[in-house]
Amino acid sequence: MKATAELQIIPVGSGVSVRQEISRVVEMLQDHGFFFETHASGTNIEGELEDILRLVKQLHEMLHKEGTVRLVSYLKLETRTDKIPTLAGKRL
Amino acid sequence: MKATAELQIIPVGSGVSVRQEISRVVEMLQDHGFFFETHASGTNIEGELEDILRLVKQLHEMLHKEGTVRLVSYLKLETRTDKIPTLAGKRL
Amino acid sequence: MKATAELQIIPVGSGVSVRQEISRVVEMLQDHGFFFETHASGTNIEGELEDILRLVKQLHEMLHKEGTVRLVSYLKLETRTDKIPTLAGKRL
Amino acid sequence: MKATAELQIIPVGSGVSVRQEISRVVEMLQDHGFFFETHASGTNIEGELEDILRLVKQLHEMLHKEGTVRLVSYLKLETRTDKIPTLAGKRL
Repeated sequence: MKATAELQIIPVGSGVSVRQEISRVVEMLQDHGFFFETHASGTNIEGELEDILRLVKQLHEMLHKEGTVRLVSYLKLETRTDKIPTLAGKRL
Repeated sequence: MKATAELQIIPVGSGVSVRQEISRVVEMLQDHGFFFETHASGTNIEGELEDILRLVKQLHEMLHKEGTVRLVSYLKLETRTDKIPTLAGKRL
Repeated sequence: MKATAELQIIPVGSGVSVRQEISRVVEMLQDHGFFFETHASGTNIEGELEDILRLVKQLHEMLHKEGTVRLVSYLKLETRTDKIPTLAGKRL
Repeated sequence: MKATAELQIIPVGSGVSVRQEISRVVEMLQDHGFFFETHASGTNIEGELEDILRLVKQLHEMLHKEGTVRLVSYLKLETRTDKIPTLAGKRL
Protein backbone atom coordinates (compact mmCIF):
# COMPACT_ATOMS: atom_id res chain seq x y z
CA MET A 1 0.00 0.00 0.00
CA LYS A 2 1.41 3.37 -1.03
CA ALA A 3 1.51 6.21 1.48
CA THR A 4 2.65 9.77 1.91
CA ALA A 5 4.21 10.73 5.19
CA GLU A 6 5.72 13.58 7.11
CA LEU A 7 8.46 12.82 9.59
CA GLN A 8 10.04 15.08 12.19
CA ILE A 9 12.59 13.65 14.60
CA ILE A 10 13.61 15.63 17.67
CA PRO A 11 16.59 14.59 19.80
CA VAL A 12 15.70 15.68 23.35
CA GLY A 13 18.57 16.87 25.47
CA SER A 14 21.25 16.95 22.76
CA GLY A 15 21.73 20.68 22.67
CA VAL A 16 19.82 23.44 20.98
CA SER A 17 20.96 22.56 17.45
CA VAL A 18 19.60 19.38 15.92
CA ARG A 19 21.08 19.93 12.46
CA GLN A 20 23.47 16.99 12.59
CA GLU A 21 20.76 14.47 13.41
CA ILE A 22 18.53 15.82 10.63
CA SER A 23 21.38 15.45 8.12
CA ARG A 24 21.70 11.80 9.07
CA VAL A 25 17.98 11.29 8.46
CA VAL A 26 18.28 12.79 4.98
CA GLU A 27 21.29 10.58 4.19
CA MET A 28 19.33 7.47 5.13
CA LEU A 29 16.35 8.58 3.00
CA GLN A 30 18.70 9.00 0.04
CA ASP A 31 20.43 5.68 0.64
CA HIS A 32 17.06 3.91 0.62
CA GLY A 33 15.93 5.58 -2.59
CA PHE A 34 12.84 7.27 -1.19
CA PHE A 35 11.25 10.20 -2.98
CA PHE A 36 11.24 12.92 -0.32
CA GLU A 37 11.17 16.68 0.22
CA THR A 38 12.69 18.43 3.22
CA HIS A 39 11.05 21.60 4.49
CA ALA A 40 11.30 23.84 7.53
CA SER A 41 9.16 21.61 9.77
CA GLY A 42 10.07 18.09 8.71
CA THR A 43 10.50 15.83 5.72
CA ASN A 44 7.73 14.67 3.42
CA ILE A 45 8.16 11.13 2.12
CA GLU A 46 6.42 9.08 -0.57
CA GLY A 47 6.65 5.29 -0.73
CA GLU A 48 5.31 1.97 0.44
CA LEU A 49 3.76 2.28 3.91
CA GLU A 50 5.77 -0.72 5.05
CA ASP A 51 9.06 0.79 3.84
CA ILE A 52 8.35 4.14 5.50
CA LEU A 53 7.62 2.44 8.82
CA ARG A 54 10.77 0.31 8.60
CA LEU A 55 12.77 3.46 7.88
CA VAL A 56 11.45 5.13 11.03
CA LYS A 57 12.60 2.17 13.08
CA GLN A 58 16.04 2.23 11.44
CA LEU A 59 16.40 5.96 12.04
CA HIS A 60 15.67 5.59 15.76
CA GLU A 61 18.18 2.72 15.97
CA MET A 62 20.86 4.62 14.05
CA LEU A 63 20.55 7.86 16.03
CA HIS A 64 20.63 6.00 19.37
CA LYS A 65 23.66 4.01 18.22
CA GLU A 66 25.41 7.27 17.38
CA GLY A 67 24.82 8.58 20.89
CA THR A 68 21.45 10.34 21.05
CA VAL A 69 19.91 9.38 24.39
CA ARG A 70 16.30 10.38 23.84
CA LEU A 71 14.28 10.73 20.64
CA VAL A 72 10.76 11.89 19.93
CA SER A 73 9.47 11.50 16.40
CA TYR A 74 6.27 12.74 14.83
CA LEU A 75 5.02 10.73 11.91
CA LYS A 76 1.99 11.71 9.87
CA LEU A 77 0.76 8.99 7.52
CA GLU A 78 -1.81 9.29 4.75
CA THR A 79 -3.26 6.41 2.76
CA ARG A 80 -6.27 6.27 0.44
CA THR A 81 -7.96 3.74 -1.76
CA ASP A 82 -9.51 6.03 -4.39
CA LYS A 83 -6.17 6.97 -5.95
CA ILE A 84 -2.45 6.49 -5.38
CA PRO A 85 -1.27 9.05 -2.84
CA THR A 86 1.69 11.17 -3.98
CA LEU A 87 3.41 14.25 -2.61
CA ALA A 88 2.73 16.01 -5.92
CA GLY A 89 -0.98 15.27 -5.62
CA LYS A 90 -1.14 16.86 -2.18
CA ARG A 91 0.26 20.23 -3.25
CA LEU A 92 -2.03 23.11 -4.13
CA MET B 1 13.85 -1.57 21.30
CA LYS B 2 11.02 -0.54 23.62
CA ALA B 3 9.00 2.55 22.80
CA THR B 4 6.03 4.58 23.96
CA ALA B 5 3.70 5.96 21.35
CA GLU B 6 0.59 8.00 20.83
CA LEU B 7 -1.63 7.17 17.89
CA GLN B 8 -4.57 9.09 16.48
CA ILE B 9 -6.25 7.86 13.31
CA ILE B 10 -8.66 10.14 11.46
CA PRO B 11 -10.88 8.82 8.66
CA VAL B 12 -11.29 11.76 6.26
CA GLY B 13 -14.65 12.03 4.54
CA SER B 14 -16.45 9.30 6.51
CA GLY B 15 -18.87 11.55 8.31
CA VAL B 16 -18.53 13.65 11.40
CA SER B 17 -18.44 10.73 13.84
CA VAL B 18 -15.34 8.56 13.85
CA ARG B 19 -16.29 6.48 16.88
CA GLN B 20 -16.69 3.22 14.97
CA GLU B 21 -13.21 3.37 13.49
CA ILE B 22 -11.68 4.18 16.86
CA SER B 23 -13.41 1.16 18.42
CA ARG B 24 -11.82 -1.06 15.80
CA VAL B 25 -8.40 0.34 16.66
CA VAL B 26 -8.94 -0.47 20.32
CA GLU B 27 -10.06 -3.99 19.48
CA MET B 28 -6.90 -4.61 17.48
CA LEU B 29 -4.74 -3.25 20.30
CA GLN B 30 -6.43 -5.66 22.70
CA ASP B 31 -6.11 -8.60 20.31
CA HIS B 32 -2.38 -7.96 20.00
CA GLY B 33 -1.87 -7.75 23.76
CA PHE B 34 -0.47 -4.21 23.84
CA PHE B 35 -0.48 -2.21 27.02
CA PHE B 36 -2.38 0.94 26.05
CA GLU B 37 -4.49 3.82 27.39
CA THR B 38 -7.17 5.61 25.40
CA HIS B 39 -7.77 9.29 26.08
CA ALA B 40 -9.68 12.14 24.51
CA SER B 41 -7.05 12.87 21.84
CA GLY B 42 -5.71 9.45 20.90
CA THR B 43 -4.34 6.24 22.34
CA ASN B 44 -1.06 5.86 24.21
CA ILE B 45 0.74 2.58 23.56
CA GLU B 46 3.70 0.85 25.17
CA GLY B 47 5.60 -1.95 23.45
CA GLU B 48 8.35 -2.93 21.06
CA LEU B 49 8.91 -0.20 18.46
CA GLU B 50 8.73 -2.81 15.71
CA ASP B 51 5.39 -4.16 16.97
CA ILE B 52 3.88 -0.70 17.25
CA LEU B 53 4.89 0.16 13.69
CA ARG B 54 3.51 -3.15 12.37
CA LEU B 55 0.25 -2.43 14.19
CA VAL B 56 -0.08 0.96 12.47
CA LYS B 57 0.28 -0.72 9.09
CA GLN B 58 -2.32 -3.36 10.00
CA LEU B 59 -4.76 -0.71 11.21
CA HIS B 60 -4.54 1.22 7.94
CA GLU B 61 -5.04 -2.01 6.00
CA MET B 62 -8.00 -3.11 8.13
CA LEU B 63 -9.85 0.22 8.04
CA HIS B 64 -9.40 0.52 4.26
CA LYS B 65 -10.60 -3.06 3.81
CA GLU B 66 -13.70 -2.21 5.83
CA GLY B 67 -14.49 0.71 3.55
CA THR B 68 -12.72 3.84 4.77
CA VAL B 69 -11.45 5.65 1.67
CA ARG B 70 -8.96 8.05 3.21
CA LEU B 71 -6.99 7.85 6.45
CA VAL B 72 -4.64 10.23 8.16
CA SER B 73 -2.81 8.97 11.21
CA TYR B 74 -0.62 10.82 13.66
CA LEU B 75 1.97 8.74 15.42
CA LYS B 76 4.24 10.08 18.12
CA LEU B 77 7.12 7.77 19.04
CA GLU B 78 9.51 8.06 21.96
CA THR B 79 12.58 5.93 22.53
CA ARG B 80 15.49 6.36 24.94
CA THR B 81 18.63 4.52 25.89
CA ASP B 82 19.06 5.67 29.51
CA LYS B 83 16.04 3.72 30.77
CA ILE B 84 13.15 1.62 29.48
CA PRO B 85 10.38 3.96 28.32
CA THR B 86 6.97 3.23 29.86
CA LEU B 87 3.67 5.06 29.89
CA ALA B 88 3.76 5.04 33.70
CA GLY B 89 7.17 6.71 33.67
CA LYS B 90 5.89 9.54 31.50
CA ARG B 91 3.08 10.57 33.82
CA LEU B 92 3.51 13.38 36.31
CA MET C 1 -16.19 29.07 20.38
CA LYS C 2 -15.55 26.05 22.58
CA ALA C 3 -12.69 23.70 21.70
CA THR C 4 -10.87 20.63 22.92
CA ALA C 5 -7.12 20.55 22.59
CA GLU C 6 -4.07 18.46 23.23
CA LEU C 7 -0.84 20.22 24.06
CA GLN C 8 2.66 18.83 24.29
CA ILE C 9 5.56 21.18 24.93
CA ILE C 10 9.12 19.97 24.41
CA PRO C 11 12.10 21.99 25.61
CA VAL C 12 14.89 21.22 23.11
CA GLY C 13 18.40 21.09 24.54
CA SER C 14 17.45 21.32 28.23
CA GLY C 15 18.56 17.85 29.21
CA VAL C 16 16.89 14.50 28.90
CA SER C 17 14.31 15.14 31.63
CA VAL C 18 11.56 17.63 30.88
CA ARG C 19 9.54 16.99 34.03
CA GLN C 20 10.10 20.43 35.56
CA GLU C 21 8.82 22.27 32.51
CA ILE C 22 5.74 20.03 32.31
CA SER C 23 4.96 20.74 35.98
CA ARG C 24 5.00 24.45 35.24
CA VAL C 25 2.54 23.92 32.39
CA VAL C 26 0.17 22.07 34.71
CA GLU C 27 0.45 24.82 37.32
CA MET C 28 -0.53 27.44 34.76
CA LEU C 29 -3.47 25.35 33.58
CA GLN C 30 -4.69 25.11 37.18
CA ASP C 31 -4.17 28.82 37.83
CA HIS C 32 -6.28 29.67 34.79
CA GLY C 33 -9.09 27.33 35.81
CA PHE C 34 -9.04 25.15 32.71
CA PHE C 35 -10.59 21.71 32.73
CA PHE C 36 -7.71 19.45 31.69
CA GLU C 37 -6.32 15.92 31.86
CA THR C 38 -2.65 15.05 31.78
CA HIS C 39 -1.59 11.79 30.17
CA ALA C 40 1.61 10.11 29.06
CA SER C 41 1.84 12.02 25.76
CA GLY C 42 0.56 15.48 26.61
CA THR C 43 -2.30 17.32 28.24
CA ASN C 44 -5.88 17.43 27.01
CA ILE C 45 -7.63 20.75 27.56
CA GLU C 46 -11.24 21.89 27.28
CA GLY C 47 -12.20 25.56 27.03
CA GLU C 48 -12.74 28.57 24.83
CA LEU C 49 -10.53 28.37 21.72
CA GLU C 50 -9.33 31.91 22.37
CA ASP C 51 -8.34 31.12 25.97
CA ILE C 52 -6.47 27.96 24.96
CA LEU C 53 -4.49 29.86 22.32
CA ARG C 54 -3.67 32.65 24.77
CA LEU C 55 -2.48 30.03 27.26
CA VAL C 56 -0.09 28.55 24.71
CA LYS C 57 1.46 31.97 24.16
CA GLN C 58 1.80 32.55 27.92
CA LEU C 59 3.41 29.13 28.40
CA HIS C 60 6.06 29.83 25.76
CA GLU C 61 6.75 33.23 27.32
CA MET C 62 6.95 31.81 30.84
CA LEU C 63 9.26 28.91 29.99
CA HIS C 64 11.61 31.17 28.01
CA LYS C 65 11.64 33.70 30.86
CA GLU C 66 12.63 30.89 33.23
CA GLY C 67 15.58 29.96 31.05
CA THR C 68 14.49 27.45 28.40
CA VAL C 69 16.29 28.46 25.20
CA ARG C 70 14.28 26.51 22.62
CA LEU C 71 10.71 25.23 22.71
CA VAL C 72 8.67 23.15 20.31
CA SER C 73 5.00 22.71 21.08
CA TYR C 74 2.42 20.50 19.43
CA LEU C 75 -1.13 21.70 19.68
CA LYS C 76 -4.08 19.72 18.38
CA LEU C 77 -7.33 21.69 18.24
CA GLU C 78 -10.82 20.40 17.61
CA THR C 79 -13.92 22.50 17.08
CA ARG C 80 -17.38 21.56 15.81
CA THR C 81 -20.69 23.25 15.21
CA ASP C 82 -23.06 20.31 15.65
CA LYS C 83 -22.46 20.02 19.39
CA ILE C 84 -20.27 21.49 22.12
CA PRO C 85 -16.92 19.68 22.10
CA THR C 86 -15.89 18.25 25.45
CA LEU C 87 -13.15 15.90 26.57
CA ALA C 88 -15.79 13.58 28.04
CA GLY C 89 -17.54 13.40 24.68
CA LYS C 90 -14.36 12.34 22.95
CA ARG C 91 -13.73 9.31 25.13
CA LEU C 92 -14.86 5.86 24.09
CA MET D 1 7.97 36.99 20.26
CA LYS D 2 8.78 35.62 16.82
CA ALA D 3 7.85 32.03 16.00
CA THR D 4 7.85 29.53 13.20
CA ALA D 5 4.87 27.25 12.84
CA GLU D 6 3.40 24.45 10.82
CA LEU D 7 -0.34 24.28 10.43
CA GLN D 8 -2.48 21.52 9.01
CA ILE D 9 -6.26 21.83 9.12
CA ILE D 10 -8.42 18.79 8.44
CA PRO D 11 -12.17 19.10 7.92
CA VAL D 12 -13.65 15.85 9.26
CA GLY D 13 -16.67 14.53 7.40
CA SER D 14 -16.59 16.98 4.47
CA GLY D 15 -15.74 14.48 1.81
CA VAL D 16 -12.48 12.97 0.73
CA SER D 17 -11.13 16.13 -0.92
CA VAL D 18 -10.13 18.97 1.36
CA ARG D 19 -8.61 21.16 -1.35
CA GLN D 20 -11.20 23.91 -1.11
CA GLU D 21 -10.69 24.42 2.62
CA ILE D 22 -6.91 24.51 2.17
CA SER D 23 -7.24 27.18 -0.51
CA ARG D 24 -9.19 29.35 1.91
CA VAL D 25 -6.43 28.95 4.49
CA VAL D 26 -3.85 30.12 1.97
CA GLU D 27 -5.98 33.11 1.00
CA MET D 28 -6.23 34.20 4.61
CA LEU D 29 -2.47 33.82 5.09
CA GLN D 30 -1.91 36.05 2.06
CA ASP D 31 -4.48 38.62 3.19
CA HIS D 32 -2.74 38.91 6.57
CA GLY D 33 0.70 39.34 5.01
CA PHE D 34 2.33 36.32 6.62
CA PHE D 35 5.50 34.82 5.18
CA PHE D 36 4.53 31.20 4.55
CA GLU D 37 5.33 28.12 2.48
CA THR D 38 2.81 25.46 1.55
CA HIS D 39 3.99 21.87 1.23
CA ALA D 40 2.45 18.44 0.86
CA SER D 41 1.71 18.01 4.59
CA GLY D 42 0.76 21.49 5.74
CA THR D 43 1.80 25.11 5.66
CA ASN D 44 4.87 26.57 7.33
CA ILE D 45 4.41 30.06 8.72
CA GLU D 46 6.78 32.69 10.08
CA GLY D 47 5.60 35.61 12.20
CA GLU D 48 4.71 36.90 15.63
CA LEU D 49 3.50 34.06 17.88
CA GLU D 50 0.47 36.13 18.84
CA ASP D 51 -0.47 36.78 15.20
CA ILE D 52 -0.11 33.10 14.27
CA LEU D 53 -2.37 32.04 17.14
CA ARG D 54 -4.97 34.68 16.24
CA LEU D 55 -4.89 33.43 12.65
CA VAL D 56 -5.63 29.87 13.76
CA LYS D 57 -8.69 31.10 15.63
CA GLN D 58 -9.89 33.10 12.62
CA LEU D 59 -9.41 30.12 10.32
CA HIS D 60 -11.54 27.87 12.51
CA GLU D 61 -14.22 30.57 12.68
CA MET D 62 -14.17 31.18 8.93
CA LEU D 63 -14.32 27.52 7.91
CA HIS D 64 -17.18 26.82 10.34
CA LYS D 65 -19.04 29.91 9.08
CA GLU D 66 -18.68 28.57 5.54
CA GLY D 67 -20.23 25.26 6.50
CA THR D 68 -17.56 22.88 7.77
CA VAL D 69 -19.08 21.03 10.74
CA ARG D 70 -15.96 19.57 12.32
CA LEU D 71 -12.34 20.70 12.20
CA VAL D 72 -9.15 19.25 13.57
CA SER D 73 -6.02 21.33 13.28
CA TYR D 74 -2.44 20.44 14.05
CA LEU D 75 -0.22 23.34 14.98
CA LYS D 76 3.48 22.98 15.60
CA LEU D 77 5.10 26.05 17.19
CA GLU D 78 8.79 26.78 17.65
CA THR D 79 10.25 29.67 19.61
CA ARG D 80 13.79 30.31 20.80
CA THR D 81 15.67 33.01 22.64
CA ASP D 82 19.18 32.52 21.22
CA LYS D 83 18.26 33.79 17.75
CA ILE D 84 15.24 34.90 15.76
CA PRO D 85 13.48 31.81 14.38
CA THR D 86 12.90 31.87 10.63
CA LEU D 87 11.75 29.31 8.11
CA ALA D 88 14.96 29.89 6.14
CA GLY D 89 17.05 29.12 9.23
CA LYS D 90 15.32 25.81 9.73
CA ARG D 91 16.10 24.42 6.29
CA LEU D 92 19.11 22.20 5.71
